[in-house]
Amino acid sequence: MAAHDTAQTRQQAATLAPDESTLEQIDRWWRAANYLAVGQIYLQDNPLLREPLEPEHIKPRLLGHWGTSPGLNLIYAHLNEQIRARELDMTYLTGPGHGGPALLANVWLEGSYSEHFPHVSRDEAGMRQLFRQFSTPGGVPSHVSVPTPGSIHEGGELGYVLVHAFGAVFDNPGLIAAAVVGDGEAETGPLEGSWKGMRFLNPARDGAVLPILHLNGYKIGSPTVLSRESDETLTHYFRGHGYEPRFVEGDDPMTVHRAMAETLTEVIDEIHAIQRRAREEGVREKPAWPMIVMRTPKGWTGPDRVDGVPVEGTFHAHQVPMGGVRDNDEHRAHLERWMRSYRPEELFDEQGRPHREITDRAPRGEQRMGSNPHANGGKLRQPLTLRDLQAYAVEVTEDNRARELHGSTERLGQYMRDIYRDNPTTFRLFCPDEVNSNKLGAVFEATDRCLVSEIHDQDEQVSRDGRMMEVLSEHNCNGWLEGYVLTGRHGLFASYEAFASIIDSMAVQHAKWLEHARNVSWREPVPSMNYLLTSTCWRNDHNGFSHQGPGFIDNLLTKQAEVIRIYLPPDANCLLSVAEHCFQSVDYLNAIVIDKHPQLQYLSMEEAREHCRLGCDVWEWASNCGDEEPDIVMACAGDIATQETLAAVDLLRSYLPALKVRVVNVVDLMSLDVDHPHGISQARFVSLFTADRPVLFAFHGYRGVVHQLIHHRPGTDRVHVRGYMEAGTTTTPFDMTVLNRMSRIHLALDALRYVPKQLERAAGIISDLEALLKRHERYIQEHFEDMPEITEWVWSNGHARLPARDEP
Amino acid sequence: MAAHDTAQTRQQAATLAPDESTLEQIDRWWRAANYLAVGQIYLQDNPLLREPLEPEHIKPRLLGHWGTSPGLNLIYAHLNEQIRARELDMTYLTGPGHGGPALLANVWLEGSYSEHFPHVSRDEAGMRQLFRQFSTPGGVPSHVSVPTPGSIHEGGELGYVLVHAFGAVFDNPGLIAAAVVGDGEAETGPLEGSWKGMRFLNPARDGAVLPILHLNGYKIGSPTVLSRESDETLTHYFRGHGYEPRFVEGDDPMTVHRAMAETLTEVIDEIHAIQRRAREEGVREKPAWPMIVMRTPKGWTGPDRVDGVPVEGTFHAHQVPMGGVRDNDEHRAHLERWMRSYRPEELFDEQGRPHREITDRAPRGEQRMGSNPHANGGKLRQPLTLRDLQAYAVEVTEDNRARELHGSTERLGQYMRDIYRDNPTTFRLFCPDEVNSNKLGAVFEATDRCLVSEIHDQDEQVSRDGRMMEVLSEHNCNGWLEGYVLTGRHGLFASYEAFASIIDSMAVQHAKWLEHARNVSWREPVPSMNYLLTSTCWRNDHNGFSHQGPGFIDNLLTKQAEVIRIYLPPDANCLLSVAEHCFQSVDYLNAIVIDKHPQLQYLSMEEAREHCRLGCDVWEWASNCGDEEPDIVMACAGDIATQETLAAVDLLRSYLPALKVRVVNVVDLMSLDVDHPHGISQARFVSLFTADRPVLFAFHGYRGVVHQLIHHRPGTDRVHVRGYMEAGTTTTPFDMTVLNRMSRIHLALDALRYVPKQLERAAGIISDLEALLKRHERYIQEHFEDMPEITEWVWSNGHARLPARDEP
Repeated sequence: MAAHDTAQTRQQAATLAPDESTLEQIDRWWRAANYLAVGQIYLQDNPLLREPLEPEHIKPRLLGHWGTSPGLNLIYAHLNEQIRARELDMTYLTGPGHGGPALLANVWLEGSYSEHFPHVSRDEAGMRQLFRQFSTPGGVPSHVSVPTPGSIHEGGELGYVLVHAFGAVFDNPGLIAAAVVGDGEAETGPLEGSWKGMRFLNPARDGAVLPILHLNGYKIGSPTVLSRESDETLTHYFRGHGYEPRFVEGDDPMTVHRAMAETLTEVIDEIHAIQRRAREEGVREKPAWPMIVMRTPKGWTGPDRVDGVPVEGTFHAHQVPMGGVRDNDEHRAHLERWMRSYRPEELFDEQGRPHREITDRAPRGEQRMGSNPHANGGKLRQPLTLRDLQAYAVEVTEDNRARELHGSTERLGQYMRDIYRDNPTTFRLFCPDEVNSNKLGAVFEATDRCLVSEIHDQDEQVSRDGRMMEVLSEHNCNGWLEGYVLTGRHGLFASYEAFASIIDSMAVQHAKWLEHARNVSWREPVPSMNYLLTSTCWRNDHNGFSHQGPGFIDNLLTKQAEVIRIYLPPDANCLLSVAEHCFQSVDYLNAIVIDKHPQLQYLSMEEAREHCRLGCDVWEWASNCGDEEPDIVMACAGDIATQETLAAVDLLRSYLPALKVRVVNVVDLMSLDVDHPHGISQARFVSLFTADRPVLFAFHGYRGVVHQLIHHRPGTDRVHVRGYMEAGTTTTPFDMTVLNRMSRIHLALDALRYVPKQLERAAGIISDLEALLKRHERYIQEHFEDMPEITEWVWSNGHARLPARDEP
Repeated sequence: MAAHDTAQTRQQAATLAPDESTLEQIDRWWRAANYLAVGQIYLQDNPLLREPLEPEHIKPRLLGHWGTSPGLNLIYAHLNEQIRARELDMTYLTGPGHGGPALLANVWLEGSYSEHFPHVSRDEAGMRQLFRQFSTPGGVPSHVSVPTPGSIHEGGELGYVLVHAFGAVFDNPGLIAAAVVGDGEAETGPLEGSWKGMRFLNPARDGAVLPILHLNGYKIGSPTVLSRESDETLTHYFRGHGYEPRFVEGDDPMTVHRAMAETLTEVIDEIHAIQRRAREEGVREKPAWPMIVMRTPKGWTGPDRVDGVPVEGTFHAHQVPMGGVRDNDEHRAHLERWMRSYRPEELFDEQGRPHREITDRAPRGEQRMGSNPHANGGKLRQPLTLRDLQAYAVEVTEDNRARELHGSTERLGQYMRDIYRDNPTTFRLFCPDEVNSNKLGAVFEATDRCLVSEIHDQDEQVSRDGRMMEVLSEHNCNGWLEGYVLTGRHGLFASYEAFASIIDSMAVQHAKWLEHARNVSWREPVPSMNYLLTSTCWRNDHNGFSHQGPGFIDNLLTKQAEVIRIYLPPDANCLLSVAEHCFQSVDYLNAIVIDKHPQLQYLSMEEAREHCRLGCDVWEWASNCGDEEPDIVMACAGDIATQETLAAVDLLRSYLPALKVRVVNVVDLMSLDVDHPHGISQARFVSLFTADRPVLFAFHGYRGVVHQLIHHRPGTDRVHVRGYMEAGTTTTPFDMTVLNRMSRIHLALDALRYVPKQLERAAGIISDLEALLKRHERYIQEHFEDMPEITEWVWSNGHARLPARDEP
């Protein structure tokens, strides 16, 4: 063991150095947890080995991961000591989430499990149940997961343990998140990109993350990269990331116990020292936070060899280290020897209860990591204080409706500025370096960007006390917010729309967590994950094709309707109304899609509230059919889709006033899905979209989204969707709509195609529109050669000419 | 500057140390490139400043990124020197892809640009065109992108420059990929997770990656994390990642030129020394590859202050450092002073051609980085040598059709084993530690896993010479393969299906690259990106809910039809046929979805080839309607969907032999989409699915996929889709189909619901099936309490009882 500690922490450590008998007791806990882990993987009966193992005691299907479990158990045992001795508020995040047997063993030993699941009592019957239910149909998953008390981290998809840990301790000054990082997971990009979290962690205001890198050498089949590096290289690695690593290494249990006990004492001392300095003297330094590298064998204390093949310390120990135990007498005898090597008679009494010497090592009440309320964050959730939206609203009347441009996200920025002010420890905005770019900069009137590093004179709105989280990593932003909401606080992740797809899979996993949590009675609702998707595909004409992608919507759509909400507010007041709703909601992933550029404003605050409540509605002021059936329904969802639709309607009506057009705007996308809780009834669908008239639907994103949402609606063949069709480049905003055939000109032409009876009368308009398109094409080809009036035309039109309701 | 170099490299460096006059010439190139970068951002005319700048010389819309450009230019200038002096084969990968003006400037200076785009000649007219076209509608994108000669990296979505560089040099021993990493991008997870690439880089067999971290201090609005770390911490950081960093720092051009020239000479020496040792003596060491940290100001040589606000060296220099140049005379004068500060008269002759002293510094021919053939990899592409599939086929006859279980991916493993053997330098398999888990282990008969680190005795199939790439990072696997195919080689990325979503956005960006490349005439077709999605949602019953997600299909569907192919082979022979097709294809993303567990085999090799050629077809041997219209079409796509459909048909036919059922199997998913190049005609659609009979479609993935694909097909209301509906946990394989209502029992019950005239006669079957479901439910509730015959039933049924074609 190479302990890179200081003289000072050594001295403090001495006061807590455990004696031999304490280490023996810790080892006893560890043996008990290891025994229970093996039992969960193998046994369906005879849990205390009161009789020799028979085939019928063995589960018919052996599933579960042994390799990581003894290491996880050892860490849990030693963290308990620190919690008890110092009355710590600590949570345990299991990066190697496949180590389910370990965490279940520990929370059962400490009593938390039986309190959450009374039928799994802390005695022989409960132990039998604990074993039988594990990784069994109708039982509990093999991974640390939603029904595991004390967890906010599933760990099936690897890489997010540190981001969750950092998110959990932001604004939780008393909390320490112990985060075990597996050496497999340590190879993932998201994990390697998450060490930097402590450059955004303020020791005065936030809690602490204690990373423990568990190097057991192997993934499923290969060596891990970091396990093959020397302690010297690893020391460079962690110092380079700003940590001061300590090493706990070995395969002799008592040696490792001693090293871990001493090291943990040192690092907790050091964490407290950093926090004390910061809290007493202010944050003057870039702290070198401690972390632990633990090198122990994979499958430690398990079978050394099976059928002549080495198992302990190799990848063969990853999952079930020895198969065929039901039928193979030799293997079964080996399993029995293995389990008895933990000396169960020293661990459990006649009733199968853990001995008092073991249970006494557990912390008490909510200090038990399986009962820590931060890991069931809904218990701590307080609603946000939100001000009246009217203060941020755009004034919209019949006189200026659809005639003025205002920045919608600017208003949201002002709203969030005041949320920051009114909720100083329970709200944060996360964004990859784009807050100003996304026009949310008003938040800087209330707080700075956080950076716990050197601050230079020319930096603007950057400080160690800032609470706006800006890091150029969608993975960090999303993961931090997940940790923040899972511990009961509120926030929003603002992303360039295209780059939200970077965290597609993280959103999927969080959705799955919420889907699962709905069925776990003791999980309290947590604040929703709120996404603002801005800098959208239609207005990334300057950044080009790589920045144009609305696919995050498609990704969310695959998740259960109960946890997904997708909003496409067309203007500022709808955005505000939607945001208020999202900030008050729980247990959802809410995606709000709107661009950051100045845009037309359509609805007053009152109208917007009603429109958002309905989810979708006829815009009568833009329609000209009154109560009659229209010739065509022009539907739209999304800001640019709405703008182009209204301009197309304007064109149609100026050429063909007799054409009856109904405009339907959709703000809550899921209102289209009859199976979604927000889905409108079939009757209302018909009342909006008619039963059989053509519908031309301009949609913000990929057309397939609408196609799949309306599949169960009446008469889908008549619904013609336009949207982003993956055509784009560096060009003008209007050209983006042309390239994707969703421009006002295209929409007007297409509308005419679907109402053939008008065609004869429409000949004039068709040739006019086609000529306009040709002029536009020429303009693009000649790029700025001849700054054309068409640009003026396409921008001014639609702004100024939408007729008021009573016009003919 | 802190140069951490050795005595030896110093000595070698001395031989190439540039004299003052050489440095002056390099500076001249740099000034020319800077001048051209500024010109692209600002000017539409008067490119040589022959007359004072007037408003009409300024572009009406100023777009482009200046901040990173001078640094990119400096690196380019100095790499040219190394290439010329040593005749290097080198490519330039621009992590800060927004630095388009820089790369365009350099490839224009070296002449590559005009060879690719003759209308942009290397003279005044061409310079004017170069300026005008930049970031202009109808012109070229503001990012380094597909039409940028010399690029295989777009860099709009940040984080992938190193993975692309590593992929490019695998099996390219003579190639050096210079990879500029921006300090913003360095914050992303994928980038931080990609430094480890050199632990998989064999210096004897592969080329070299030269990372150059450009610390210019700021992102769009915030300081970057790494720029605020000391050289000491950065040295730890890179030593921890296994590199030996050199530092080039400063803001005085000539000082930096000298440092960069000397440092580059040293690092190229060191790269050659590492390669020489490895090639002469074998790979005995873990090389400490050199890399460069370059600290220079953001927007270096640009405006120091604008309107009193500091710009150079701050985030204000990120994009256009000075706006309003058309209207603001002072700004325009400032721009003119700025551009003249590069002394254009020393750079360009009367005709606007770069002076000979400048052009002489460019390498010649294909050594110019804008003309390096590796960056247009299709030019180097050789088809794979592929053996006859018959050698790997499962023998399927009328006697064993749908009656035997064989591992399909095992056959693919054998096929790839021989591809490795027959194509020793042009094929690689990439997989996150799951090759054996995914049953592709036969490849280890031909090669090992690659690890250029310590190898231990208990490691299996791991060596420094291995060419199977296993790293627990989907980002690395995907990015390496992208780099590999973009430089003309072939490969496959095998992923757990659920975790393919981790690289959703990378697949999107590669698709966009291919979509764009279709319109760039000089881009030669590159081998396709091939994805094997296995360990699918239906068979991750043991790993549970987090491992169950077929959403990668939904993600691919959003891309242009021209570049996307999705295959769902139901058995081994179809898988082989599809794989052969994919390995021969170019310019696609091919996704092949099939599970790894033993599965029923349906088609002989010959039948499979024909079935895959058609994309979808009636399986007459499983149907009982002959040439008549069926009562119901039972369609299926995907292995488990096919298995359950056939078992359901079997149930239906044994109870109700008079019910006419047609089975249609879909292997090429896009054949359903009428707008896709593979889409079948409407007539063929009707011939398969009928015009109006009910269709019960069992689909592997989310139901919305089929809903959107069939939107334009006749009579979509009668198509009822079953699929993965986000229900799952740790359970049995059969229970997964029950939970998602796609079990044979559900399919049989649903089929009966859609053919009501049969209902009366079906009463017996309905109550029997419902009883079976109840028994199953009880079984799950009682988990293994009573190992039930239902398990036997659900597994044996369908295997053994599908009638041969001629049975009644």
